[in-house]
Amino acid sequence: MNEFDIIREVFAPLTAEAPGAFDLVDDVALLENQNLVVTKDLLVSGVHFLPKDPLDLVARKLIRANVSDLAAKGAKPLGYFLGCVWSAGVKREALELFAKGLREDQETYRIALYGGDTTAHATKTAPLTLSATFFGIPPKQGLTSRSGASLGDDLYVSGTIGDAGLGLAALRKEFKFTTVDKASLATRYQLPEPRLSLGAALAGLATAAIDVSDGLLADAGHIAKASGLRAAIDAVAIPRSGAAGSWIAAQENRWRALSQLASFGDDYEILFAAPPAMRRSVTVAAKASRTEVTRIGTLTRGAGVGLLDENGAEIPTKLTGYDHFRS
Amino acid sequence: MNEFDIIREVFAPLTAEAPGAFDLVDDVALLENQNLVVTKDLLVSGVHFLPKDPLDLVARKLIRANVSDLAAKGAKPLGYFLGCVWSAGVKREALELFAKGLREDQETYRIALYGGDTTAHATKTAPLTLSATFFGIPPKQGLTSRSGASLGDDLYVSGTIGDAGLGLAALRKEFKFTTVDKASLATRYQLPEPRLSLGAALAGLATAAIDVSDGLLADAGHIAKASGLRAAIDAVAIPRSGAAGSWIAAQENRWRALSQLASFGDDYEILFAAPPAMRRSVTVAAKASRTEVTRIGTLTRGAGVGLLDENGAEIPTKLTGYDHFRS
Repeated sequence: MNEFDIIREVFAPLTAEAPGAFDLVDDVALLENQNLVVTKDLLVSGVHFLPKDPLDLVARKLIRANVSDLAAKGAKPLGYFLGCVWSAGVKREALELFAKGLREDQETYRIALYGGDTTAHATKTAPLTLSATFFGIPPKQGLTSRSGASLGDDLYVSGTIGDAGLGLAALRKEFKFTTVDKASLATRYQLPEPRLSLGAALAGLATAAIDVSDGLLADAGHIAKASGLRAAIDAVAIPRSGAAGSWIAAQENRWRALSQLASFGDDYEILFAAPPAMRRSVTVAAKASRTEVTRIGTLTRGAGVGLLDENGAEIPTKLTGYDHFRS
Repeated sequence: MNEFDIIREVFAPLTAEAPGAFDLVDDVALLENQNLVVTKDLLVSGVHFLPKDPLDLVARKLIRANVSDLAAKGAKPLGYFLGCVWSAGVKREALELFAKGLREDQETYRIALYGGDTTAHATKTAPLTLSATFFGIPPKQGLTSRSGASLGDDLYVSGTIGDAGLGLAALRKEFKFTTVDKASLATRYQLPEPRLSLGAALAGLATAAIDVSDGLLADAGHIAKASGLRAAIDAVAIPRSGAAGSWIAAQENRWRALSQLASFGDDYEILFAAPPAMRRSVTVAAKASRTEVTRIGTLTRGAGVGLLDENGAEIPTKLTGYDHFRS
């Protein structure tokens, strides 16, 4: 197996829908005349996924993490460029399992591979490192930015929060769950569901949006900072799954547990702001995209993020999202 | 120092020329309506650069390796998306030195940073891994592909071949060189010179082109394979620097040495094909772009690459380019 066989046999078939990819026989690809939204996300073994995670799921998570960024902006994904740095001595079966995952989610999202680079580390212990640059078409209404929220806007989030973080804890055996809960939580960690339909329905309606990847509190902080406001979040309103509910019930301090849940990463839900006058439109958009949406707070004067209890008192939060450079 | 400070303070200033980068406060960038050529190259510590290479030079090599891909296609670079996976515990000074290198070569090539992702490995020993997705404007005459060479076309290469490989050997102390030679060879390895002007001048003239990154023989093989022909290369005609000439003179077997020189990677010269009727035009293009160009062979019937001695007899070549997956 050499590098060129791998490209021709494993990756080139993934470009079938992309004439501009030139079957990966050239060093470049050609994208035809149109406005493009572009995003780039890295996934690193031992940081963003577990070294033992099945490689088809890792491939799909790579696609979904990037698609989620486009979804929050209201964009429609078209294709991607892929960079893989494998550990030395990687086996062909591993590459093929990875490519199988890519193929599955290319079909799910109707996207194609356009190009990239594949190489290997110098050692067997160096971790698999993945990079994807995704591009898509912006919505007619314009991109939903992080920075457009106004004073008094409502804050909403899709789906449920904290499941992916609990799934990671379950896979690491840090907490015990029932078999059913463990399976559903692990799936939330390994195979997120980007909210493409909701993101498209929110274009022109949401004043600001972000996908929740760093954690609900951290990402609310990003919208607040970019918009020059403070995010006030009602802890009890944060939507949670049955499994997360059971976990909270088993914790000593309910407020601390809620704060933890809101600090886990990898939810890939959409957190967005919209004026109170648009509440009915938000409900319509949620229904039209068959996505649960919950109002969880408000944008107020100030800066940062406040997590509030039933009485409006601030809950101490230590965790404000995963920071790869925290020392 | 946290992840968001790094993005805001170290990387956001690099997007000053790119309004579509939104100052890196969003997860996406916007590229305006135009045809784009896109390429992606990875650089991994211990594989594509030495762990002790100064980080400003590593940054510039990352830019130059990608610009070189665009140059060979006749394209004009516009900007890039950057992915960095740092070893755990990286210091701010290291990031700043890296950003300094990016800034220098952004000015050299008049390009801007448009977006990306920055993260860190879980361990201090995991190697710095860099990914860049570059985009540019295709030439009016259309991209110069790998596959357009015709039977009987001449094969040319710019600059001199093998210096970067000797530079790497010098840095690793595998061979001894004079101080002056060592310095010039090391620079060829650490700071390649993409042939942008030549690539632009060859658009519509060269029938096929590639930048020499895998090694002259391997890259000639890529053109040959994509064009359905065989590349016959005159070993003595391969252009070499004074330093490479001294090295060859010190080797026991001159033919073996020439074959090694043609198998080293990282030259970042342009290897291209053109019909014999266009020899004068090639000379004009070389002069106009102030780039040395040497005719080194022909495309013949058959497949693969032949390295020929003065009598046209084939020189045995073991090395046909660096393969990251060779076991």
